[in-house]
Amino acid sequence: MAKTNPPVAIIMGSQSDWATMRHAAETLDALDIAYDARIVSAHRTPARMVSFAQGAKAAGFKVVIAGAGGAAHLPGMTASLTPLPVFGVPVESKALSGQDSLLSIVQMPAGIPVGTLAIGRAGAVNAALLAAAVLALSDEALADRLDTYRERQSAAIAERPDRTQT
Amino acid sequence: MAKTNPPVAIIMGSQSDWATMRHAAETLDALDIAYDARIVSAHRTPARMVSFAQGAKAAGFKVVIAGAGGAAHLPGMTASLTPLPVFGVPVESKALSGQDSLLSIVQMPAGIPVGTLAIGRAGAVNAALLAAAVLALSDEALADRLDTYRERQSAAIAERPDRTQT
Amino acid sequence: MAKTNPPVAIIMGSQSDWATMRHAAETLDALDIAYDARIVSAHRTPARMVSFAQGAKAAGFKVVIAGAGGAAHLPGMTASLTPLPVFGVPVESKALSGQDSLLSIVQMPAGIPVGTLAIGRAGAVNAALLAAAVLALSDEALADRLDTYRERQSAAIAERPDRTQT
Amino acid sequence: MAKTNPPVAIIMGSQSDWATMRHAAETLDALDIAYDARIVSAHRTPARMVSFAQGAKAAGFKVVIAGAGGAAHLPGMTASLTPLPVFGVPVESKALSGQDSLLSIVQMPAGIPVGTLAIGRAGAVNAALLAAAVLALSDEALADRLDTYRERQSAAIAERPDRTQT
Amino acid sequence: MAKTNPPVAIIMGSQSDWATMRHAAETLDALDIAYDARIVSAHRTPARMVSFAQGAKAAGFKVVIAGAGGAAHLPGMTASLTPLPVFGVPVESKALSGQDSLLSIVQMPAGIPVGTLAIGRAGAVNAALLAAAVLALSDEALADRLDTYRERQSAAIAERPDRTQT
Amino acid sequence: MAKTNPPVAIIMGSQSDWATMRHAAETLDALDIAYDARIVSAHRTPARMVSFAQGAKAAGFKVVIAGAGGAAHLPGMTASLTPLPVFGVPVESKALSGQDSLLSIVQMPAGIPVGTLAIGRAGAVNAALLAAAVLALSDEALADRLDTYRERQSAAIAERPDRTQT
Amino acid sequence: MAKTNPPVAIIMGSQSDWATMRHAAETLDALDIAYDARIVSAHRTPARMVSFAQGAKAAGFKVVIAGAGGAAHLPGMTASLTPLPVFGVPVESKALSGQDSLLSIVQMPAGIPVGTLAIGRAGAVNAALLAAAVLALSDEALADRLDTYRERQSAAIAERPDRTQT
Amino acid sequence: MAKTNPPVAIIMGSQSDWATMRHAAETLDALDIAYDARIVSAHRTPARMVSFAQGAKAAGFKVVIAGAGGAAHLPGMTASLTPLPVFGVPVESKALSGQDSLLSIVQMPAGIPVGTLAIGRAGAVNAALLAAAVLALSDEALADRLDTYRERQSAAIAERPDRTQT
Repeated sequence: MAKTNPPVAIIMGSQSDWATMRHAAETLDALDIAYDARIVSAHRTPARMVSFAQGAKAAGFKVVIAGAGGAAHLPGMTASLTPLPVFGVPVESKALSGQDSLLSIVQMPAGIPVGTLAIGRAGAVNAALLAAAVLALSDEALADRLDTYRERQSAAIAERPDRTQT
Repeated sequence: MAKTNPPVAIIMGSQSDWATMRHAAETLDALDIAYDARIVSAHRTPARMVSFAQGAKAAGFKVVIAGAGGAAHLPGMTASLTPLPVFGVPVESKALSGQDSLLSIVQMPAGIPVGTLAIGRAGAVNAALLAAAVLALSDEALADRLDTYRERQSAAIAERPDRTQT
Repeated sequence: MAKTNPPVAIIMGSQSDWATMRHAAETLDALDIAYDARIVSAHRTPARMVSFAQGAKAAGFKVVIAGAGGAAHLPGMTASLTPLPVFGVPVESKALSGQDSLLSIVQMPAGIPVGTLAIGRAGAVNAALLAAAVLALSDEALADRLDTYRERQSAAIAERPDRTQT
Repeated sequence: MAKTNPPVAIIMGSQSDWATMRHAAETLDALDIAYDARIVSAHRTPARMVSFAQGAKAAGFKVVIAGAGGAAHLPGMTASLTPLPVFGVPVESKALSGQDSLLSIVQMPAGIPVGTLAIGRAGAVNAALLAAAVLALSDEALADRLDTYRERQSAAIAERPDRTQT
Repeated sequence: MAKTNPPVAIIMGSQSDWATMRHAAETLDALDIAYDARIVSAHRTPARMVSFAQGAKAAGFKVVIAGAGGAAHLPGMTASLTPLPVFGVPVESKALSGQDSLLSIVQMPAGIPVGTLAIGRAGAVNAALLAAAVLALSDEALADRLDTYRERQSAAIAERPDRTQT
Repeated sequence: MAKTNPPVAIIMGSQSDWATMRHAAETLDALDIAYDARIVSAHRTPARMVSFAQGAKAAGFKVVIAGAGGAAHLPGMTASLTPLPVFGVPVESKALSGQDSLLSIVQMPAGIPVGTLAIGRAGAVNAALLAAAVLALSDEALADRLDTYRERQSAAIAERPDRTQT
Repeated sequence: MAKTNPPVAIIMGSQSDWATMRHAAETLDALDIAYDARIVSAHRTPARMVSFAQGAKAAGFKVVIAGAGGAAHLPGMTASLTPLPVFGVPVESKALSGQDSLLSIVQMPAGIPVGTLAIGRAGAVNAALLAAAVLALSDEALADRLDTYRERQSAAIAERPDRTQT
Repeated sequence: MAKTNPPVAIIMGSQSDWATMRHAAETLDALDIAYDARIVSAHRTPARMVSFAQGAKAAGFKVVIAGAGGAAHLPGMTASLTPLPVFGVPVESKALSGQDSLLSIVQMPAGIPVGTLAIGRAGAVNAALLAAAVLALSDEALADRLDTYRERQSAAIAERPDRTQT
């Protein structure tokens, strides 16, 4: 029954963000953490955003991962509407390469935090890992899986560069 | 009774934004345009923001001027909740001098526009002038006052620099 | 007779800006708002620019949408020559990705406003929507069309990401 | 005995970072969350950093808040050495105003996450609030205190700007 | 009668630019080159700008030095209206420290050049020196004065730092 | 004999800069201005640079156009070694898109000016046009050709966008 | 036996950095300087990094060249753990083109230096040349080879651009 | 006689750079390394620069530390004229806070390296420490002094922040 009442919500501003946010989903899959992935646009579906964010804790979510690009308001607005920890992923934007996304997410005023990860794929992977680290605080089995994940990751780094790859 | 049912709402994210936004207010005063000035924090009073924005048109406002700094979500979120034209003023932030405010306001996704002005005082003055230009489309008397304002502004530019001022 | 005396002028600095500005045109088409699209280079046809801008109000235009890239002077210079509201679209430039266009348009001095939209296609769409919001203040039918446009836009956002698209 | 076995470690790269990081400490105080504050320089005391980070979980910490400026390696290196969630605060640097601090902290590669907050004081306050949100997942009393904190914060935002303050 | 028919026009967007542009004036004074200094705002006195620029060559000017800040359109618009060489000085702006001024002046499209100098005082001095270098091409006496100026400048650089000055 | 004693020297830091600088050459060709194009690397052939720059005036050059990318020292160093006017073209660099080239060229200290043009092709074209404007001060025939060039340029701007081109 | 006890260590954060760092290796090859190339991730193999850096001097290395991208902590952390000179190469990152890598490497606090080279391939070549310059201080034969390398480099710069290459 | 034939040259572009570069001098003093400090302006005294740089090796210098601001050409030009290792210190500039200095120094083309340190005081201290690390490769006594310096530096970092200092 691991997939009932998933502890993690992955939300994103548009379908095009899925190309980035799927890396969060895949990382959660690798750690056997259940999640729910939705499109919630702060700007084009504000009512859906308010409804989701205000109900997130009661719905049983523990952590929200929110990805958005450009004037990326979804992570911060969600954080203003839920007491749950919110982790933000700046999606790489076309003209400004995600610099706008990053600043729009990370520069929150005192009072409403968003834990912000790197721009793009690395940020999506890491949002999942940070969510895992949070959930592992009260889930020993997950803590073990996360340790194993990190050990494998270290072990996978070769000692020498493969000079045939450039 | 000029001050009843003011056509312009000036909203801002915090008391500290007033130092910037008062220049919008003073410019509207100079043009004899009534307005209402409120503090509406997208992050710390999201319910107030939703309520204000959803009711703005019915309340009789014609134009919303919204100022905010840092991860400045107020202008864009307001624009997502009202069909009225929204003009955004990036307030100068401490560390990044308003570059974060500017990008958070101007880089809106297709579908929800915010007409963005310059960072700081000039932007606040100009948000008022742009609101005036919009209102003047259907108010000949205001159009005349705006023309006069612009003519005086031009006439006030001396031909020669005053070399005693540096 | 909807296409007579169009309320919106779309001007742009060069033919190459059309790839961006046509999104403004298409959005106005979708809202059944008539417009006139012209090439007016601030730098290479300054006389044409002065003539256009000084005559824009008398010609019956209500709103000007101006797109330009690099040292983008067209929106600001037009705004200095007409009392009409001017909305600026920073066209993405080659080396600096539109950062130069954005700053050249948005950082206007106090006295002459340009309501600036996002860099590129999103900005062009939104300039049209902002023009529509302005015109809708005195056109109930347009206000209804704009509401419908926004409702359809919200309804078009799926609840779940299509995981087959990346 | 609330201060025994504190759940939060606040670490910082130098004494001068205390001017920023004390806002994290004060916020934790306001929420009655115990913490330990230390100076751990990634560059000048690397052995101390390794020792602290490797032992942080066994020492009973649940969350690490790490502040640093310039080429700010402390948050990321700590995250590489502990499975605990690490939240990073970019301290405002002299020449580059914290832009270097921000990028050095947030742009972590896939595999090792740092949840990054805003540059400077707001980031320090928010790191504490994010730590509180994490701890509140398994501490109902803290969840209540955090709710109260947020409600007071909302209630403290006046409806109208105090026009005597500029 | 050295001050009749001055070869150099110094124009600037506002009185506040004089604090920067006076360094151009003083450098021309030091080289005994006559000039005329005027305030010509591209945005607030566009007619004055058009009139000045279109008449500059007939008025006997050889070189135009134009200083402006923010969305600095004066140098580029002047260059579009006169065949004379135009040198632009980006005045340091408040929020963005002249980065906006620099990009607005230097990123001109192919067809209309502005020879741009450094932001602020150094740029104003150098605009005067560049004007002098241009005029010296057909004025041997000036060429000699410019050589002397440069030699003195070199000679004034001490071999050793004065360690009592910090 | 138009190509004897050419008035313009085009210098560039490497062969790869020719892709940009050829636009300066082609523009001079279009104006029938003779020039000499050379590769002079400030860093890899400093002796060649010193020799060229110190002898440029005696060799009969009137204007130097210098293009370089990255830490672009060629324009500034040339300007330090010749009293001739030097115009700099920032070549677009790979990682930073010419932002490094631009700042390295334009931010010269007081005393040694480089008239800087836009990054890339537009800058190369404009360096040639600015050189032409300088030479035209004492060459009426060239002034006429330059006027014709500018008139044709204006005339070539169509009134309406060709909507078949995007 | 020139390849025993190599004086230079080339380390890099991941296999993908080899595409950049091989240019350091090839430059050392060209100068007949032996080296050892390893993958040492500050974040994913911190123990390997500590072990390598602490033992680097005893292992006989004289100079360390460290390349990394994004939040690039490898050069600075290595420098904190060895008294050997460390030269850092910012690898071009995807979203921010190496601006994050550069600032993360160069902005080290007082006390722990990293001599930083350019972003990307040029930086990798130059890290090798700087290592060679350091080693040549006590190796006359290498000093001669380095002189020859630089002379050939100068001689390889053609006097005239090959106009057939663009 | 420790001060005869100093191994380190500290050069800087102007007297005003001494406020930064004296920190390099003081650090060398602390390590008992002799040096020579001179003002050598790449732009205003190019002949002095060429003479210094070409003679630096023969004069017995081992390492050159070069500080400059703005379009900072001194480090790179010196590196092009000497085979000695050159370490560059970007001096904080007025408008752009040393971003121009940094890029002008670090973004050298392949072939001529400058090992670049941080902007401002930290960079000056670190240039001295990097020079010391280089010299220590062939000077055991200096290696011991450098180890002691680093140990004292580590020991001077208190375990706990002094909360009375903010």
